[in-house]
Amino acid sequence: MNSGVKGPNVLDRLVTLFSKLPGIGKKSAGRIVYHILDSNPMLAENIANELSLLHKTIRRCSICGGFTENNPCSVCSDSGRDHSIICVVESAQDMRIIEDAREYPGVYHVLGGLIAPLEGVGPANLSIDKLISRLDGSHQEGENVKELILALNPTVEGDTTALYLQKLLKDFPVEITRLASGMPVGGNIEYIDKLTLSRSFRGRVKI
Amino acid sequence: MNSGVKGPNVLDRLVTLFSKLPGIGKKSAGRIVYHILDSNPMLAENIANELSLLHKTIRRCSICGGFTENNPCSVCSDSGRDHSIICVVESAQDMRIIEDAREYPGVYHVLGGLIAPLEGVGPANLSIDKLISRLDGSHQEGENVKELILALNPTVEGDTTALYLQKLLKDFPVEITRLASGMPVGGNIEYIDKLTLSRSFRGRVKI
Repeated sequence: MNSGVKGPNVLDRLVTLFSKLPGIGKKSAGRIVYHILDSNPMLAENIANELSLLHKTIRRCSICGGFTENNPCSVCSDSGRDHSIICVVESAQDMRIIEDAREYPGVYHVLGGLIAPLEGVGPANLSIDKLISRLDGSHQEGENVKELILALNPTVEGDTTALYLQKLLKDFPVEITRLASGMPVGGNIEYIDKLTLSRSFRGRVKI
Repeated sequence: MNSGVKGPNVLDRLVTLFSKLPGIGKKSAGRIVYHILDSNPMLAENIANELSLLHKTIRRCSICGGFTENNPCSVCSDSGRDHSIICVVESAQDMRIIEDAREYPGVYHVLGGLIAPLEGVGPANLSIDKLISRLDGSHQEGENVKELILALNPTVEGDTTALYLQKLLKDFPVEITRLASGMPVGGNIEYIDKLTLSRSFRGRVKI
């Protein structure tokens, strides 16, 4: 619905803004904005208030690089966690997802991306120097790291980055592991792709 | 990632708010909020500003019930449109979608829902009185309506509402039609459900 006046109105502008968010197309954006318009005005106000607070209150943790309100973040400053294991993730969001599973007892390191030459992302663009400083003890926190778990996506970029880190860090007295890749729980051999199936074979475990 | 402090932080609160919007689950909400956090702060600010403007600037059109900045809306106040045809839609969003197709030359009437007894929505909850006032000429605008196109979803609720309106308005000198229901363009007979196929047969057109 174009307003009769020249420029797009607030409704159209919001639809355009929402449609640029990941996973939201033009149609879903319209649905969302009309839903907000149909809802109690408090909803729009709440989202607006939180959004304007977002960048003011959330910062990068100076140790792991995750998003946090307080620096260092609650994970890095938690003495109950195992600081001898660092889980290396691509993004702060991956860190959140692993945290939500409540399975992992150690700390994190956010790379801020994966090596992707075609997109112009090289090792220098990632937070690798900081990772090394956490391993060689030059970091103020003096973590005594024994294991590095590379929790990177099983994609070309993830594989490349894992290989790069493995070679780069081979002289450090630290064990480097990577998350198991294979069939998802509840999956069906019939529908699994060939690459995943072959990885499942190579990574088979004794029962 | 739970912040060490008691309550959820702005990040968690935003994820919860976004996950309540239509079509967005907990995971997509996380992806969206982290995307906003990773983007230029202007993005969050723009969305926040537009959201706080939304309810202040957008109102219901007093004639058709669609959302608009100016009352009456650009469609109702457009003398170039055919005011003798009213397209009856469930929601302002459906009105937007039909407008975006740039095919329909007439005006609209937003019912604000469909008759759904199980959900407690009866005819009295819909904008039917207003529709009648547009037909019997008691409305200030004095539209001379010749056709009413019921553009309601081909669902039980849509069918019920169409039937109800058809009976209610049978004495008005107005032709009542309904959008054709049948196979979507590009569809495949093999994959079409039985009900749609039978509607396609009943609604077959001479070529």
